Amino acid sequence: MNDEQLHAMRHSLAHITAAAVQRIWPDAKFGVGPVVENGFYYDIDLGERKISEANFAKIEKEMRGIISYGDDFERFEMPIDQAIDWARQNNQPYKEELLNDLKRSGTTIAKDLDANELGLATEGDAAVETVSFYKNGNFVDLCRGPHVANTKDVGAFKLLRVAGAYWRGNEKNPQMQRLYGVAFATQEELDQYLERLEQAKLRDHRKLGKELDLYTISNLVGPGLPLFTPRGTVLRDIMSTYSNQLRQRYGFQKVFTPHITKKELYETSGHWAKFGDELFLVTSQETSDNFALKPMNCPHHTQIYVSQPRSYKDMPIRYLETTTDYRDEKTGELGGLNRVRSLTQDDSHVFARPDQIEQEIHNLLSSARELYDTIGMKLRVRLSYRDDGEGYLGEMALWETAQAQLKNAVIANELEYFEQEGEAAFYGPKIDFMATDAIGREHQVATVQLDFVQPERFGLTYTDQEGKDAQPVMIHCALLGSIERFLSVFIEHTGGWFPLWAAPEQIRILTINDQVLPYVDEIKAVLSSVVLDKPVKFNELRFTVDDRNESLGKKIREATNWKIPVQLIVGPQDQESRQVSVRTQAGEEKVSLDALADYLKAL
Amino acid sequence: MNDEQLHAMRHSLAHITAAAVQRIWPDAKFGVGPVVENGFYYDIDLGERKISEANFAKIEKEMRGIISYGDDFERFEMPIDQAIDWARQNNQPYKEELLNDLKRSGTTIAKDLDANELGLATEGDAAVETVSFYKNGNFVDLCRGPHVANTKDVGAFKLLRVAGAYWRGNEKNPQMQRLYGVAFATQEELDQYLERLEQAKLRDHRKLGKELDLYTISNLVGPGLPLFTPRGTVLRDIMSTYSNQLRQRYGFQKVFTPHITKKELYETSGHWAKFGDELFLVTSQETSDNFALKPMNCPHHTQIYVSQPRSYKDMPIRYLETTTDYRDEKTGELGGLNRVRSLTQDDSHVFARPDQIEQEIHNLLSSARELYDTIGMKLRVRLSYRDDGEGYLGEMALWETAQAQLKNAVIANELEYFEQEGEAAFYGPKIDFMATDAIGREHQVATVQLDFVQPERFGLTYTDQEGKDAQPVMIHCALLGSIERFLSVFIEHTGGWFPLWAAPEQIRILTINDQVLPYVDEIKAVLSSVVLDKPVKFNELRFTVDDRNESLGKKIREATNWKIPVQLIVGPQDQESRQVSVRTQAGEEKVSLDALADYLKAL
Repeated sequence: MNDEQLHAMRHSLAHITAAAVQRIWPDAKFGVGPVVENGFYYDIDLGERKISEANFAKIEKEMRGIISYGDDFERFEMPIDQAIDWARQNNQPYKEELLNDLKRSGTTIAKDLDANELGLATEGDAAVETVSFYKNGNFVDLCRGPHVANTKDVGAFKLLRVAGAYWRGNEKNPQMQRLYGVAFATQEELDQYLERLEQAKLRDHRKLGKELDLYTISNLVGPGLPLFTPRGTVLRDIMSTYSNQLRQRYGFQKVFTPHITKKELYETSGHWAKFGDELFLVTSQETSDNFALKPMNCPHHTQIYVSQPRSYKDMPIRYLETTTDYRDEKTGELGGLNRVRSLTQDDSHVFARPDQIEQEIHNLLSSARELYDTIGMKLRVRLSYRDDGEGYLGEMALWETAQAQLKNAVIANELEYFEQEGEAAFYGPKIDFMATDAIGREHQVATVQLDFVQPERFGLTYTDQEGKDAQPVMIHCALLGSIERFLSVFIEHTGGWFPLWAAPEQIRILTINDQVLPYVDEIKAVLSSVVLDKPVKFNELRFTVDDRNESLGKKIREATNWKIPVQLIVGPQDQESRQVSVRTQAGEEKVSLDALADYLKAL
Repeated sequence: MNDEQLHAMRHSLAHITAAAVQRIWPDAKFGVGPVVENGFYYDIDLGERKISEANFAKIEKEMRGIISYGDDFERFEMPIDQAIDWARQNNQPYKEELLNDLKRSGTTIAKDLDANELGLATEGDAAVETVSFYKNGNFVDLCRGPHVANTKDVGAFKLLRVAGAYWRGNEKNPQMQRLYGVAFATQEELDQYLERLEQAKLRDHRKLGKELDLYTISNLVGPGLPLFTPRGTVLRDIMSTYSNQLRQRYGFQKVFTPHITKKELYETSGHWAKFGDELFLVTSQETSDNFALKPMNCPHHTQIYVSQPRSYKDMPIRYLETTTDYRDEKTGELGGLNRVRSLTQDDSHVFARPDQIEQEIHNLLSSARELYDTIGMKLRVRLSYRDDGEGYLGEMALWETAQAQLKNAVIANELEYFEQEGEAAFYGPKIDFMATDAIGREHQVATVQLDFVQPERFGLTYTDQEGKDAQPVMIHCALLGSIERFLSVFIEHTGGWFPLWAAPEQIRILTINDQVLPYVDEIKAVLSSVVLDKPVKFNELRFTVDDRNESLGKKIREATNWKIPVQLIVGPQDQESRQVSVRTQAGEEKVSLDALADYLKAL
């Protein structure tokens, strides 16, 4: 089934949903019923009556009844004034309002309601003279179509949830009930989708973030500004340490820059004109300088570059900084760690000679591949080029060369890729990395961006072999991207069962009774001596002991709720045989104390 | 010689300086001539004529002449109106202005000029009726005294520098020339002081920061906002890593909080009312919330504390965070790393039961002692208590108990201490640590502060043994204090010759010719295998190779300019005998390749 067929099917199901609701509650007034990702919805006004999930079985039963009748979807047209009469006679005031708007101008509706999704005729700004309707059985609806031929052709579906929604998205309008359904060509696909949804709910990083005590949001500090608890901080640190160590192996050097800057820095870089309204503005009460919180680090890094004369022999110069940037995101768009105002970027900048571009891109692609291999996520890249639009800085010829070089490096690295115009940054083309998580969702993560503009704006130079001033290129790269956002992906990817090297609490020793405490001291001595070296170097084991006077069952349950990857169960028999029971997600096995260190290192 | 005698001596030298200047330039007009640390100055108006260091010998010669006359300092009094006449007749308009002010009110002058230092009578706010003068030889000056008996009693002195200074510190007033001198009881003390001054100049961290490429200041980013280069970042990181690792050993857990917060957090904490004008204010263009850059981290840490219910069994809870705070310091007061707007604090907060205070203070004092033993700086502490002034929060009884507990812990730790009233924070008493550097200067570094106020304001609780809500106390502590400020001290303390564990570039291999390159690879393999474990754990060696086609002399000179603690010189003979020449500040010696790793670890 192709996308158009799927779309028609889902749209037909929206009509069938409305038809079923009308059979149950004949006074229902209908808004719009568009197709959305994986399904459809219909906005319904039932007055004081509330639809709840308890009603879903009844509505679905009616829908199945309508489908089994096997009525055709019949299209017919009506002059607009006659259609308005139809709406009035059928007590459908929302349809009447839409028709009146259509009579005046098609695009008014398009703006409010994304009319492409509504099945309404919306070509141009002209007034509409004739509108189309679709009819299946008794149910008639104003609609642009297309639909499936017959109600039997609608595949597998399920009503999913109901939520309040203001008519036309405006909170001054009446609140309607938006009834969502999902639909797929086959029952198998639907089941897979529902299973994935269930999985995603269980893995929701906001839920796990609370259960595993990783971060907190404070009303006094503000939305989108998460505070990381000791456990969450271990997770953050291990990720940023990994990214830092990895990049240092790839030749990068750490630098450190402040979180604020005078506005002049962004005026010079061009960000002020382009992104000024996304900046947090900072006012000094002591000086008249205007400051901003940094939303990115490239302009700061240029200032370290220019602090010394540079020669062609010094190039490339590679800086890394994992630092928190601030972006003035809309409050309504903030959620968990996925979109925050304080985003910590594992940022890198290369200052290179033009003849070093391809080698440096290659270096960065290799580092990104290594990182996501370790994380266990498959990568796909998008090559983002400029389009013919305005706002791109730099000469067209430079753009074309650069875009070709990026593509070459991607092909040389055998990365799966696709190309997209109009997605470039204003200063150059880029490569965006998408990583697929354990339940098949794709997330945008790393990015590599070429930049011919900032070196010019900041007057960056190096002395070339002839002793003349030459202009370097800049390459921006973030591997994890925003650590907060990456953690939201990583938590959901792992379902909170972090790999041993990353887990905040890696090992918990569970005692069966107090008799084993001297033996526990020996085990602790072994654990204290273990330092993991892969993928994070110098990763000392993080372990605790649960020697409370509680049942082993309770101790195991608690350790499992904390999703601690390794539980070491120690009883009198273990003490006697100088063994421990190692319990992991893979099962439980006995390991001798002498072999424990090597066993853990190999996990 | 006691402090009062030294003060009289320096003040007398100020008069003698003015007398000498008057003998050379009889039209000189005089401002004030107070005693300052280590010496004195006199503000002089010579019209267009500029005093330069080239004039110092001549002035000093006149001073010595005056001293050799052996005139007594004679005190006499004059009614204020007669004194005003005297000033007018002697063409001393600044003295005339001071006398007119004194005639109105004593404290006006005190406010502007710190009149205690001026030798002017300033008791109370009342108008002055009679003023005192001192006369030595021909020179007469308005002065409160006291002076030495005779010009011969002035010890050893030297004119040090001359600088512009606005009359009464107001830039709308005429600019005068401020002539500084230093003076000590003996020539030996003066020589020691001048030697220390010379040392301090060589060690100036702004000079060394540039020479050793540690940080840079950018006009586009702004004053007081240093950017750290790769070398400087290694130094920062090694210091913060050391502080973090040390505190983790003392039971602290890392947390992470954003750099901005809603204003409400500081309104709740009480900082807004107290320090509101020292905050950088942050404006969102997306929400109407008011934000501020955090100037400290305690209020943020309370929000992690309250994110979970806490039991008496969980206490104490110890958080550490090394994070950059922002304070809106006056532009004129910013300098190098010593006073910055972006200060990175190695901050710690303990939430403890009241019965745990002494144990926790003890824990913190021990950690501070350990850190400064490693740094090689002697500590002395100031116990800062409240006075009777306003602005202190919390009950007096709590303050008294707390002050006693701090003192007990200091005594138990055998720390040298002194007590000072009126130096406490508004929320509780504190212990400030002063560290003495290699040239005898004392710097304020670490701090431990008790706080009974914030737990109450934030409603912090834990469940006590009876199941009731109890209120914890908070203890604030920073060991390095601000890392930027600490680095300014550390750079000057070491003169840029950092100990091996902290040096950005620890080792440089210097080749005598290309023949030794295969052997250099073997040496590099040895260095790569060395990981220092004290005082910073997992401290991999940072080394480079200078295999350029340059003379050994040049290579050694360059490595020495970079103050690289270990230089390994490798020539054909070394290769043959499988040795290296290890050159450190202590000298040069041959070490066999087999013994090199252990040799370096023991440095």
